[in-house]
Amino acid sequence: MIGEIIAIGDELTSGRILNTTSYFAASQLFAAGHEVAAMTTIGDDPVLIGTTLLNSLHRADFVIVTGGLGGTSDDLTTEAVADALDRPSTFYPEILEQIRTHSKNAPEQVRLSLEKLAWLPAGAHALKYDAGMAGYFLVHEGKPIFFLPGIPHEMKQLLVETVLSRLAVWEGEDARLVRQRVYRVAGLSETEINDLIGRGGDDDKRIKIGYYPVFPEVQVSLTVAAGNEPEIDALFAAADGRIRRILGLNIFGGPDETLEGVVGQSLGRCGLSLAVAESCTGGLIAHRITRVAGSSVYFYGGIVAYSNLLKEQLLGVSGTTIAQFGAVSAETARAMAEGVRRVTGADLGLSVTGIAGPTGGSPDKPVGTVCFALATNDGCREYRFLFNGDRNQVQEASCLTGLDLIRRHLAGG
Amino acid sequence: MIGEIIAIGDELTSGRILNTTSYFAASQLFAAGHEVAAMTTIGDDPVLIGTTLLNSLHRADFVIVTGGLGGTSDDLTTEAVADALDRPSTFYPEILEQIRTHSKNAPEQVRLSLEKLAWLPAGAHALKYDAGMAGYFLVHEGKPIFFLPGIPHEMKQLLVETVLSRLAVWEGEDARLVRQRVYRVAGLSETEINDLIGRGGDDDKRIKIGYYPVFPEVQVSLTVAAGNEPEIDALFAAADGRIRRILGLNIFGGPDETLEGVVGQSLGRCGLSLAVAESCTGGLIAHRITRVAGSSVYFYGGIVAYSNLLKEQLLGVSGTTIAQFGAVSAETARAMAEGVRRVTGADLGLSVTGIAGPTGGSPDKPVGTVCFALATNDGCREYRFLFNGDRNQVQEASCLTGLDLIRRHLAGG
Repeated sequence: MIGEIIAIGDELTSGRILNTTSYFAASQLFAAGHEVAAMTTIGDDPVLIGTTLLNSLHRADFVIVTGGLGGTSDDLTTEAVADALDRPSTFYPEILEQIRTHSKNAPEQVRLSLEKLAWLPAGAHALKYDAGMAGYFLVHEGKPIFFLPGIPHEMKQLLVETVLSRLAVWEGEDARLVRQRVYRVAGLSETEINDLIGRGGDDDKRIKIGYYPVFPEVQVSLTVAAGNEPEIDALFAAADGRIRRILGLNIFGGPDETLEGVVGQSLGRCGLSLAVAESCTGGLIAHRITRVAGSSVYFYGGIVAYSNLLKEQLLGVSGTTIAQFGAVSAETARAMAEGVRRVTGADLGLSVTGIAGPTGGSPDKPVGTVCFALATNDGCREYRFLFNGDRNQVQEASCLTGLDLIRRHLAGG
Repeated sequence: MIGEIIAIGDELTSGRILNTTSYFAASQLFAAGHEVAAMTTIGDDPVLIGTTLLNSLHRADFVIVTGGLGGTSDDLTTEAVADALDRPSTFYPEILEQIRTHSKNAPEQVRLSLEKLAWLPAGAHALKYDAGMAGYFLVHEGKPIFFLPGIPHEMKQLLVETVLSRLAVWEGEDARLVRQRVYRVAGLSETEINDLIGRGGDDDKRIKIGYYPVFPEVQVSLTVAAGNEPEIDALFAAADGRIRRILGLNIFGGPDETLEGVVGQSLGRCGLSLAVAESCTGGLIAHRITRVAGSSVYFYGGIVAYSNLLKEQLLGVSGTTIAQFGAVSAETARAMAEGVRRVTGADLGLSVTGIAGPTGGSPDKPVGTVCFALATNDGCREYRFLFNGDRNQVQEASCLTGLDLIRRHLAGG
């Protein structure tokens, strides 16, 4: 179907806040097989809200409206919609009940303002009113309109949990239910993934597979639509199983997981500790690991040996190794990994040394050449990669790859 | 004036690319005193481009259109505009000449496709056609319309260099010229800045000052509009001088400068080297410094002493200092800074140790407490801050503050 997205809020039109919810909705709708014709962002202006909605309704098969649903005086969406669609605001006692239950510990003033959320345009159905998430749905002149909160995480959750399946229902008997899963992938490019698993929809229109490079990783989405529960269960299990079998260890997690979080959990589960020795990433790997609360349990620390002298002094890399093989070499990487493991006493020592650019490349070792080593109780393994991109992209790709080497090692890969 | 922004491109409506150009334009227009009523994003669809433009023109005083101006077959903006406004595409030989000059080293095929850029709707004026930047301007039924490229850095440059001043001209005799400057500020909050310098426009409507918290820093923008060159020169110099006098060392650079870049330049100028010892920032400061190409000249490296044991082993912090004062204390920070300076041989040693949270706080040292020390040839100074925010915000604020302490030291502050 063809849809339009309308985002409402003065904070968006004044350029104070970057609108990321419309972008998220567009990518999800695209993955589910819909086409977004237009995305409009407007301020909290009742007249403009009304005319924009009527314009979009006129052109599109469905409309998603985000923002302006809260309980404060500058939240004008519901009133504007009631006027524009000639559907007077109606009080829904069951919604007030839900809101009261979920806000019973909130201050009196907040609870009073939340009561405004129990007034919806006539004919609206609440999508889900728990955890403070206000959202509703109505059908106007045969077209579905979804009203979602402007707060990104609430909007995204309601979109994925309720909007996509209702749109699938709308499309007819062949697609009564829809289920979606996102896989985060490291170690394969978009093209490699495509060659391995295809788009899925060639022989069965109920299954759609999309790929989104979110540098430096790739995200794969599986969307399955079917007429009933047993059918969707079977289709989804088969498609999910196929993707997992083909991509295997290249999948590092789901949409709400981070690679550093997955690595931390694995380290915790194995009861192992980690230290890192970084050159070209300059501390990025250590920082990524310490973004995770509680990482002090398994992360001892790191050494950013940016100069060759520090590689020798702090990590015990021998000057002859550097002179003979170069600072960017499997040999130096090995000495760095073993060195950081030795000086910190950690179970695992990861090292990275490379040429981030823009200068410093050579025919043998062009810009983007990065060597890694992972030293463990069982010995040390070295790796060499060539990454594309500018200085920061090489650093980001090196960080992802370094963390991913730890993950694969712990997973037995 | 009231404006609208239209962004064109299938890559935007399919959710492949996040639209940041409309956001940038909105914030710049807001700072210059305009109001953006609506921002619309549509695909490369000639009919929709035409109707959207006519709708926006009907409602607004001016319209900015971005994207779809390139030379390939999916760039449809100019044709669609020519149709919608009934202004037939016209060939501009002088533009072709400019394009030919600037693309003389491009492959034959690219040069041929660029010739399409010399066809504009009748009545259009090229904004600037050097460095491959295509953009034009036309007045339709008394309202200015700006067509800018979709590539973010080209769009932003043309907006700042040509659109803002032409809009000021449009506003009438009182504002023939406009000049804008952005100051990046560390060490003061938005409220503190407001208390210090006010908004500027209370007594003189030609001067506007805006504040934008871009966590963890604050950006201040000065916009001056005046009728002639001598007037704007005088007004701008006075307002710029006042802002610089009041904010002083708190200004760390302009919109295209980064704090780590400014620190790097200062270190280079002074011929000094740097090493860092990080605990709660986990390597973020070292990474930020090494994002700058050429940082190996002044940056020796860093030690991420996340565990207390590593603070002792790698930095020589005494166990009794940690036991007596705590890992987060001025005393430990001092020992870390002196330690990293000693073991690396760098001229400057910066340390940071703090409680990023969410756990680990106490009444004496709540979450967000962060201690710094800067050790130099002249001794060591310690600092203690309390930052608000979640774990990542405390880490980001600590990184900014740590870098800023180096900058202020080198500037003699």
